[in-house]
Amino acid sequence: MKSKTALDEFELIDAIAAIAAIAEPASADRAAAGVRIGIGDDAAVVALDAPAVLTTDTLTEGVHFRSDWLTARDLGRRAVRVAASDVAAMGGRVRFVLLSLGVPTGLGMKRARELVRGVVEEATGAGGALVGGNVSNASELLLTVTVVGEAIVDPVRRDGACVGDRIFVTGSLGAAAAGVEQLYGGRRRGALVDAWRRPPQRRDVGEALARAGIPTAMIDVSDGLVQDLAHVCRSSRLSAVIDRKALPLSPAVGRSRSLRSNPLVYALSGGEDYELVFTAAGKNTAARARQICARHECPLTVIGEMVDGESRGPVIDENGEAVTAPGYRHGRVAKR
Amino acid sequence: MKSKTALDEFELIDAIAAIAAIAEPASADRAAAGVRIGIGDDAAVVALDAPAVLTTDTLTEGVHFRSDWLTARDLGRRAVRVAASDVAAMGGRVRFVLLSLGVPTGLGMKRARELVRGVVEEATGAGGALVGGNVSNASELLLTVTVVGEAIVDPVRRDGACVGDRIFVTGSLGAAAAGVEQLYGGRRRGALVDAWRRPPQRRDVGEALARAGIPTAMIDVSDGLVQDLAHVCRSSRLSAVIDRKALPLSPAVGRSRSLRSNPLVYALSGGEDYELVFTAAGKNTAARARQICARHECPLTVIGEMVDGESRGPVIDENGEAVTAPGYRHGRVAKR
Repeated sequence: MKSKTALDEFELIDAIAAIAAIAEPASADRAAAGVRIGIGDDAAVVALDAPAVLTTDTLTEGVHFRSDWLTARDLGRRAVRVAASDVAAMGGRVRFVLLSLGVPTGLGMKRARELVRGVVEEATGAGGALVGGNVSNASELLLTVTVVGEAIVDPVRRDGACVGDRIFVTGSLGAAAAGVEQLYGGRRRGALVDAWRRPPQRRDVGEALARAGIPTAMIDVSDGLVQDLAHVCRSSRLSAVIDRKALPLSPAVGRSRSLRSNPLVYALSGGEDYELVFTAAGKNTAARARQICARHECPLTVIGEMVDGESRGPVIDENGEAVTAPGYRHGRVAKR
Repeated sequence: MKSKTALDEFELIDAIAAIAAIAEPASADRAAAGVRIGIGDDAAVVALDAPAVLTTDTLTEGVHFRSDWLTARDLGRRAVRVAASDVAAMGGRVRFVLLSLGVPTGLGMKRARELVRGVVEEATGAGGALVGGNVSNASELLLTVTVVGEAIVDPVRRDGACVGDRIFVTGSLGAAAAGVEQLYGGRRRGALVDAWRRPPQRRDVGEALARAGIPTAMIDVSDGLVQDLAHVCRSSRLSAVIDRKALPLSPAVGRSRSLRSNPLVYALSGGEDYELVFTAAGKNTAARARQICARHECPLTVIGEMVDGESRGPVIDENGEAVTAPGYRHGRVAKR
């Protein structure tokens, strides 16, 4: 336990309010955006136009990141993007963000401000606003980001996949996990490290797919493709047959010569990709999904098909063998 | 940093879902309660009948509590009650709760379950439901509770106090801070310790007062009366004159002979009381406020009046002297 308070709590809250205010639209726009009461009261009061999509995620120093792995600004952005990824996976839209910040001794006001700037930038970039939160002391730096989104159309669940649905994945896989390996090895530059630092932003694609009624089930890849796809399988009481050769492996992973494992391992179980995996039925649907993704400059790949029965494991390969993957658990940073 | 994962993340999430399900009403009631998608998907989806009141609060082991100070169940309950207090201070009503849980090595499944039971009990007791959250490793136990409330009537802000408004405080002050002092001294029993463990529940009073249109400004006492009242003063650009002799000092603080400071110190700046302080105009209003509080078996005391000018300090005493109080900062546990 630390013996000193790191920062003045109220000074930091004032700084957060000031940073958020700069990013905020003028008061007429604010009202339109639904912010009735923002930072500075006991709680924020906001108006939503549709059911709320609620998610919360914590990033803890030493568990999910190390402070020398990324700038404070990138950390703030990353925290919002990781939480917002869950909203995208429901087909929702980001509206409001709350930040609970645990401040260790030694975190200066300058770094704290940069961190908050990153949070505000990402929140406003997503069309939302930072409307409240909380600051307290902590032994490590920790950020809990709560995102309140809006379900403009019926939210896409995990349990709607049907036999014969094809399995799609956006973007590419494996780079973030390979980047973490490099960060542990002391590297601080390069495409892989940057992929981990700045997860892809799939909120527009997620919302557009849901709006078009395409996905029967959807999830984001946070723990690793196999593990996350297994959640869809279990919820939908089906199995997924995937074609390993079809996986959209990150080109940077393929190119790298210094990685310790087979490139496929990063794609199957690396995790923290924050891409979307979804299931959809019909040939026309695939073409429409492709069009939507192309409009957002987002690659899209068919990696398999949903089949009956869970007997051989939730995820099986083209030969009918179970695909097991240790899965990327949060906590891996601490475990090495 | 710890070298082992404490608990299986997914096993714990399943346990949380099971505990929350037991507390949940039947599916028809759930729909009525607005829960469209609860625990187990990427995000929760809920419907609100009014603008959302959003607040988040983190309790960190070693900063806000020590694990031997209270049972896991009381800790879970306390975490929700502390966060819900901010909703009460806006006159809102608790609807949905998210829990982000940081799990250290050594926290067994039994204790984790008890903690979640406490969270669920308090959420459902408040008329709400635990609908989602997140589990990850952490070096200390930490709980971030986000409460999504509903503003049935116009929310009560901090900035609406007017000259001549009287200042009211619910319940009594000082017991929680005195309890923390005793906990540090090794005591584990008694009224003061219990007062800290189980903060008062003022959500019904807060909502009823707001519904009656009584408070012009309201805040909950988390950092200490003087400090929190000063927030109201600054937001409303006024000063508060308080009568020290009128303060509703906790009887248990008055009785205790082992405390280190003057009883008034705990009442003025102890903090963590989670009582409501509000301002209201007119004699009739005072009588109605009293009736409402009496209906909820909640004591109510007039402690002063709002006056013009901020020159002598936001809070001044009956002789016109500034009342300064160090204030109870979260982080005090760690600072001793």
